[in-house]
Amino acid sequence: MRILLVGAGGVGDAIAKIAARRDFYEQIIVSDYDEARAHRTVDWITEKHGPDVAARFDTAQIDASDPEVVARVAREHRATHVMNAVEPKFVPSIFAGALAAGADYLDMAMSLSEPHATDPYSETGVKLGDDQFAQAGDWETAGRLALVGMGVEPGLSDVFARYAADHLFSEIDELGTRDGANLVVTDDAGNEIFAPSFSIWTTIEECLNPPVIWEKDAGWFTTPPFSEPEVFHFPEGIGPVECVNVEHEEVLLMPRWVDAKRVTFKYGLGEEFINVLRVLHLLGLDSTTPVRVRSANGPVEVAPRDVVAAGLPDPATIGPRMTGKTCAGLWVTGTGTDGQPREVYLYHVSDNEWTMREYESQCVVWQTALNPVIALELLARGTWSGRGVLGPEAFDAEPFLELMRAPEAEGGYGQAWGLEDRLAS
Amino acid sequence: MRILLVGAGGVGDAIAKIAARRDFYEQIIVSDYDEARAHRTVDWITEKHGPDVAARFDTAQIDASDPEVVARVAREHRATHVMNAVEPKFVPSIFAGALAAGADYLDMAMSLSEPHATDPYSETGVKLGDDQFAQAGDWETAGRLALVGMGVEPGLSDVFARYAADHLFSEIDELGTRDGANLVVTDDAGNEIFAPSFSIWTTIEECLNPPVIWEKDAGWFTTPPFSEPEVFHFPEGIGPVECVNVEHEEVLLMPRWVDAKRVTFKYGLGEEFINVLRVLHLLGLDSTTPVRVRSANGPVEVAPRDVVAAGLPDPATIGPRMTGKTCAGLWVTGTGTDGQPREVYLYHVSDNEWTMREYESQCVVWQTALNPVIALELLARGTWSGRGVLGPEAFDAEPFLELMRAPEAEGGYGQAWGLEDRLAS
Repeated sequence: MRILLVGAGGVGDAIAKIAARRDFYEQIIVSDYDEARAHRTVDWITEKHGPDVAARFDTAQIDASDPEVVARVAREHRATHVMNAVEPKFVPSIFAGALAAGADYLDMAMSLSEPHATDPYSETGVKLGDDQFAQAGDWETAGRLALVGMGVEPGLSDVFARYAADHLFSEIDELGTRDGANLVVTDDAGNEIFAPSFSIWTTIEECLNPPVIWEKDAGWFTTPPFSEPEVFHFPEGIGPVECVNVEHEEVLLMPRWVDAKRVTFKYGLGEEFINVLRVLHLLGLDSTTPVRVRSANGPVEVAPRDVVAAGLPDPATIGPRMTGKTCAGLWVTGTGTDGQPREVYLYHVSDNEWTMREYESQCVVWQTALNPVIALELLARGTWSGRGVLGPEAFDAEPFLELMRAPEAEGGYGQAWGLEDRLAS
Repeated sequence: MRILLVGAGGVGDAIAKIAARRDFYEQIIVSDYDEARAHRTVDWITEKHGPDVAARFDTAQIDASDPEVVARVAREHRATHVMNAVEPKFVPSIFAGALAAGADYLDMAMSLSEPHATDPYSETGVKLGDDQFAQAGDWETAGRLALVGMGVEPGLSDVFARYAADHLFSEIDELGTRDGANLVVTDDAGNEIFAPSFSIWTTIEECLNPPVIWEKDAGWFTTPPFSEPEVFHFPEGIGPVECVNVEHEEVLLMPRWVDAKRVTFKYGLGEEFINVLRVLHLLGLDSTTPVRVRSANGPVEVAPRDVVAAGLPDPATIGPRMTGKTCAGLWVTGTGTDGQPREVYLYHVSDNEWTMREYESQCVVWQTALNPVIALELLARGTWSGRGVLGPEAFDAEPFLELMRAPEAEGGYGQAWGLEDRLAS
């Protein structure tokens, strides 16, 4: 297996660092528009693991927006797999470039949606991943695999869905991805500050898009932003966090392979963050349409959302000033294999202190990066195989979760995941 | 009496329109940096009241930031009184210009404060009006009067304080100005929109400055913004509104002339507006320090607060789309003249529908303008007189409130004010 990793930002960097402890691949080519970023990643690996490990890594410059460039770089490096680790707006070009180069493809976020033109808060328009699934035939014909949505959410959550269906439930009422954290960022004086652990620009986009829900009878439909608020209790000391519906890939993936009555995604933004987003929307500060504003050099035109982003700390820099844990998981309700009502929460927790110490990687970013590495290892072993455009739930979940949980000394990743039986307590 | 009115913005315009129905003065010179605005005001008066009334008005161009220009215009028009109706940042220049021209002076907001350098949320720095009171000796020596803070708040609220001390209480525990409204602004489709009835730029300044409180034992001190929230019940259908401490002139004026144990000012911003201000502060969007932001023409530098203001409707334009009432008043607790505990709310309500119909003036603006006109009439009659720098509470409140309340047919202003005995119900 020769992997072209596209993007050496936070997640790409962490993917390379995690893979550096494994040996299932022949070569990883770390590529970025700014090749210096790729070099930084490989330098870290060299320092941490020595030249023998580093010898399995190479770097390349790449323009992810151009499918022909992606295909050329993939061919030059004889890539068997293209791992997309950049912003979702580049999905179409990398997806096309990988197919053109005859490589398999993985990503962690799917092609973008467009709201319904006249009824955005009840009907779907173009859905997340629609553009990719529309090309499934080409991938099948070519005998190639595109494993889409293979991060943590989507990704691990989808693996949990398949696991619940195969091993825990005879009938599933709801597959509800629930994500929450207790992360706190402090300034130099130790005071808590408002500093989102991910791009506020992207978060506004994600949270103000109409959330999508799937129901067996109704199919896919949308709601207004922040709908159906609920307080979800997260494990390992995170505790209760207010969650709301958010547009996310799981809702588009799970119903294609797993039988359930309802599929939802709720994000534990917390009351404060939801409030911030609401106020930004109320005042039009979420807008990407430029407004005319006075400046020392006369009137200028700026997008309010860019001004909001400009005033906040760069999420890439806050890792060292952050404490707490983030939890990704799937809440499942229905009838257990014993015929009794069952409610479980399957989850994985990532602690920022640990990820910073082991990987110099912020925990939200690191947790995302872990899962595609495990998936690549299963594909390299042949444990997972397929063709066409497939989600994580199209594959047997047990070997994934087993490899994830097994101690490093026994060949695993040493990442415990949890199963909480919520009716049993 | 010959009045130089400085500023033909919202409040200046309304002062001229209210005065046009009275005849206590010889001439009012409506002046503005943009003389066309002054002409618009006089044109309205001509159309509404005819040429005889309009003959008592003149216009002038003025630069309010230059004391020499203010003095020259005042002398040219033989002004006996200079009425300041522009932003408080121009107080020092108009104040100095009036004294230089040998005229008396009135304003509706006092010279600006500066926070304490090291302990802004518990100690005062430069207080509102400090610069003006520092010059009181010059005014006394010259035998001239500066009647400061003579709008509605400060202004009418201070008149109420003197009235309560003279006629309602033997001992006052708290003089608490309380301001609230139920104003709603709608868009063309009739949907309620977020549109402050006053400049968001100024409101941010006012609300994020450390609020000042006066106590007999402690003197003046400050608190963090939005301190001591309370729900105050306003009369005439406005109902309960959440109020918080805000820096305001009453707290600096009342203790100088009226005996009380505590003096406060709370503004009924309402939960939504307080929340908006908090979020703007949390994200640094209240800042006036420019940040670097991308734009279509490359990076530019803009102040976040200017971007916030640029995205909201101009408060001067929302009168026709606004409904509701605004209430200004003073809540007083202590011991009544009968020796029994007493709690009263003295207030005046202004209804936007009425002020728009009668004066084409938005109710918040019109209510501010009413009070200096009454004060000028009392000064013209000689009912009120004084020298030095004095607040409204330095004068007998009864003739003010009587003139205000008396029907127009009987020579008054026909503006009822209320007294609610809150322990009697």
